Amino acid sequence: MNNKEHKTLKKRLHEIIYEADTPAGKLFDVILLILILISVLVVMLESVESLNAIYGTYFQIIEWIITILFTIEYILRVFTVKSPLKYIFSAYGLIDLAATLPKYLGLFIGKTEALLILRSLRLLRIFTILKIARYIGASNHLIRAIKASRAKIGVFVFAVVVLSIVLGTIMYLIEGTANSGFTSIPRSIYWIVVTMTTVGYGDIAPVTALGQFFATLVMIMGYGIIAVPTGIVSSEYSDVKKYKTNTQVCNNCNENNHGDDANFCHQCGERL
Amino acid sequence: MNNKEHKTLKKRLHEIIYEADTPAGKLFDVILLILILISVLVVMLESVESLNAIYGTYFQIIEWIITILFTIEYILRVFTVKSPLKYIFSAYGLIDLAATLPKYLGLFIGKTEALLILRSLRLLRIFTILKIARYIGASNHLIRAIKASRAKIGVFVFAVVVLSIVLGTIMYLIEGTANSGFTSIPRSIYWIVVTMTTVGYGDIAPVTALGQFFATLVMIMGYGIIAVPTGIVSSEYSDVKKYKTNTQVCNNCNENNHGDDANFCHQCGERL
Amino acid sequence: MNNKEHKTLKKRLHEIIYEADTPAGKLFDVILLILILISVLVVMLESVESLNAIYGTYFQIIEWIITILFTIEYILRVFTVKSPLKYIFSAYGLIDLAATLPKYLGLFIGKTEALLILRSLRLLRIFTILKIARYIGASNHLIRAIKASRAKIGVFVFAVVVLSIVLGTIMYLIEGTANSGFTSIPRSIYWIVVTMTTVGYGDIAPVTALGQFFATLVMIMGYGIIAVPTGIVSSEYSDVKKYKTNTQVCNNCNENNHGDDANFCHQCGERL
Amino acid sequence: MNNKEHKTLKKRLHEIIYEADTPAGKLFDVILLILILISVLVVMLESVESLNAIYGTYFQIIEWIITILFTIEYILRVFTVKSPLKYIFSAYGLIDLAATLPKYLGLFIGKTEALLILRSLRLLRIFTILKIARYIGASNHLIRAIKASRAKIGVFVFAVVVLSIVLGTIMYLIEGTANSGFTSIPRSIYWIVVTMTTVGYGDIAPVTALGQFFATLVMIMGYGIIAVPTGIVSSEYSDVKKYKTNTQVCNNCNENNHGDDANFCHQCGERL
Repeated sequence: MNNKEHKTLKKRLHEIIYEADTPAGKLFDVILLILILISVLVVMLESVESLNAIYGTYFQIIEWIITILFTIEYILRVFTVKSPLKYIFSAYGLIDLAATLPKYLGLFIGKTEALLILRSLRLLRIFTILKIARYIGASNHLIRAIKASRAKIGVFVFAVVVLSIVLGTIMYLIEGTANSGFTSIPRSIYWIVVTMTTVGYGDIAPVTALGQFFATLVMIMGYGIIAVPTGIVSSEYSDVKKYKTNTQVCNNCNENNHGDDANFCHQCGERL
Repeated sequence: MNNKEHKTLKKRLHEIIYEADTPAGKLFDVILLILILISVLVVMLESVESLNAIYGTYFQIIEWIITILFTIEYILRVFTVKSPLKYIFSAYGLIDLAATLPKYLGLFIGKTEALLILRSLRLLRIFTILKIARYIGASNHLIRAIKASRAKIGVFVFAVVVLSIVLGTIMYLIEGTANSGFTSIPRSIYWIVVTMTTVGYGDIAPVTALGQFFATLVMIMGYGIIAVPTGIVSSEYSDVKKYKTNTQVCNNCNENNHGDDANFCHQCGERL
Repeated sequence: MNNKEHKTLKKRLHEIIYEADTPAGKLFDVILLILILISVLVVMLESVESLNAIYGTYFQIIEWIITILFTIEYILRVFTVKSPLKYIFSAYGLIDLAATLPKYLGLFIGKTEALLILRSLRLLRIFTILKIARYIGASNHLIRAIKASRAKIGVFVFAVVVLSIVLGTIMYLIEGTANSGFTSIPRSIYWIVVTMTTVGYGDIAPVTALGQFFATLVMIMGYGIIAVPTGIVSSEYSDVKKYKTNTQVCNNCNENNHGDDANFCHQCGERL
Repeated sequence: MNNKEHKTLKKRLHEIIYEADTPAGKLFDVILLILILISVLVVMLESVESLNAIYGTYFQIIEWIITILFTIEYILRVFTVKSPLKYIFSAYGLIDLAATLPKYLGLFIGKTEALLILRSLRLLRIFTILKIARYIGASNHLIRAIKASRAKIGVFVFAVVVLSIVLGTIMYLIEGTANSGFTSIPRSIYWIVVTMTTVGYGDIAPVTALGQFFATLVMIMGYGIIAVPTGIVSSEYSDVKKYKTNTQVCNNCNENNHGDDANFCHQCGERL
């Protein structure tokens, strides 16, 4: 195989692996997607003891086949990409590696060693699902809206945490001696979060009249608080969508963030 | 009965069955609605063992009467519609058939055969309620808003599923050995969804300190995540409504933002 | 007391009772508000057996005092209002009557008669709180937004009910034989509503793998569905607010629903 | 140390303590933040009996160190600020004092006295976390949106409370005799709030068919009600954001809807 043939092969493989325009490329994507789903399914089912007892060996075989296929995929990706190092240390590269490595590492750990490590390695394989991130990508608006709201939601979450600590302590004072599960401040804070987010497990619940009255206040408060992140995302999302519709870029200064009704660039005054 | 009379009868029946403009048509609709509600109610009450033991035979009689009436309705619909085949294979046609068929099929299945099939057939009759879909229809905006958000909500649901699988596995690692219900990854994922959607049954709840801390993080995360679909629908719905409002454009000043009930341009007073 | 004095007294009393502009009128309102709150509090506490055993007689005395005061208020309202009949059959008039009547009716029912009736009468007094409706009133926007969304929310609620019946039946098929609380279709529908609205008591919870998988789907669906009413109210509320700012009424046709930027009436073209 | 030196020192300390522009000021802020977090963490862990039994003395030592540091901070703040009295009686001043005082007060309370007071004092220290409020501050929009919605949310909460009392009483009537936890009206109201806010502990749940049917109605109602505060905040937040965007008005065409970063009018190209 001379150098030219090598180039062509590399180029063709690149097209198949990294693009989805050709039939071969599409087929590759579909097969990869199926393998990812099988892999995740097997790890999940393996954790169900009753199933693992019966089908354990089949699960092992399937896992080894998929791991080897993923390894081949990884090697091909490194081989066909222009700058292998850049790929290896990219998020996608690390995820692809993480999808294969744990299975191999498992071989080097003897049965005599800590089971917890083995188990953790086994479960690490669930992160194979992150390979799927390649196929989401699309929804730019959503991501932009979330990014735009990030700072405000951060402040909001911080305020909720502070509020939870204060309310949790008050609840601990009220119910602490009532033998109702509020045995420490951290547990009371856990309960406050369970209540304010309207999850409400019921594993801990107030039993005193005062505790129940206070719980009622916390719930109604939570009602109002849940409105805040929704309002933020809702509003930011509307804004992001508005900006999108306009794809005009100023010829003079390359500013591209123009409103829908803009006739002139708001940066330099150039007619759009 | 000659051909002309036949035509007229067919036309009159079509008016009664498919339209609601004439008094007879309205009466037909009201009777049908009542029959649907009775039918669904009977299937529901039949499943309550204590009631079925006493009123079982009455339920059977009511069901047979309604089934026969629905059969007549179905035959009339096929008979009076212009293109019977199109109706038969339309969603409405299939629903109308599904509302009658299970009862007849029940006759052909002997008592010696699997009870599960009989029971399933019996319950299939609850889908009679889908006949009611004819009377909803109206809310075009809502449906348009949901359709417009579908793709984004799809991506969102997919991202939530991926997140649930990853978080569920982490939770399984944390609580798996703590004898607290997190016995397998699928169950842990079930718990994550129960928590993130703020349902919170409490059938499974973390017992370790680390598990409760992690649960707190998941809940606060869920708080932020629930804002996303709301923001999407809210924003899309506002957009859809805007488009409806009016498509009139003033001939004089080209203002186009008129309300539904506007007869004159609010900018220049020109008649629209 | 001649007729003129009578008129003046009636007018002054009307001012005190129905208006809040004068100091006496304000005082009347504050006293009434306090009486309402005490009345409701007493009915609530009376239902706590441990408290009723000790303070029962005090509760009775307070109730009689308040009932007599409310009776005086009712008589004064009838006496001072311009058209007594209109007041008596208005919502406020009926609520005012309902706040006093049950206590008197209680006298005519001997101890030998059904306790349930007595108890119901007693509890009817909690509706005294509806007297407070007089003091809310204000928030026109909110009410207008809710009214504007009513039809759509109605359709939405109807669709949710249909969906709940269908999903409840499916859940009954899945979990019905698993001894997990899904003993009948109505109970399964109750569970679906508990789940879809993210309440999640946990009194009934799926135990089979398939049931839990289906529950997961229902929860994620509920996640999306909860976004719909929020989106509707949010959007309608924004609209209502926009319209509010403009209080212009057309001199020609009395149309008052003009947008903020309207210079001409959109009904008749008259300059505003 | 002469007067001038004193002035300079005071000024420098003021810069370090109250501002975050200089490296020393930033360092001061970071150290303070860490101390606050440690302080809160220690109070929380101290309430966990198993941890307090082992590390109790260490907790005491850390608390004393931090209390002394906070005392020094408080004295320095009073000393360096322009108007000490204004600071002392400001919210920040009171919070700073409240972060140190409980520890000292604990010294004056002998062991023979009521443990509850000691315990309350101990827990008061959790309010140290309010010192952190200095570092939030930022999110003006959010606070403005919440302020703008306050009156409406107030009315809404009031309406929810009235509704809860009425519905709670009805539920008490339905389930009161069914031995299912609805033992008094206050408890029933507590349950209504738990249900309507979609928290749903499950500590109290209806057992009668009628009770479950009524619960279903309450849940669907709660579904609609939760949309209201969200709609309000969402709408107000959008408004507040609009106002911020920009207050520039074009001199040429009077267009005033410019983005934050606009230098030229997007309508006519005039420099703003």
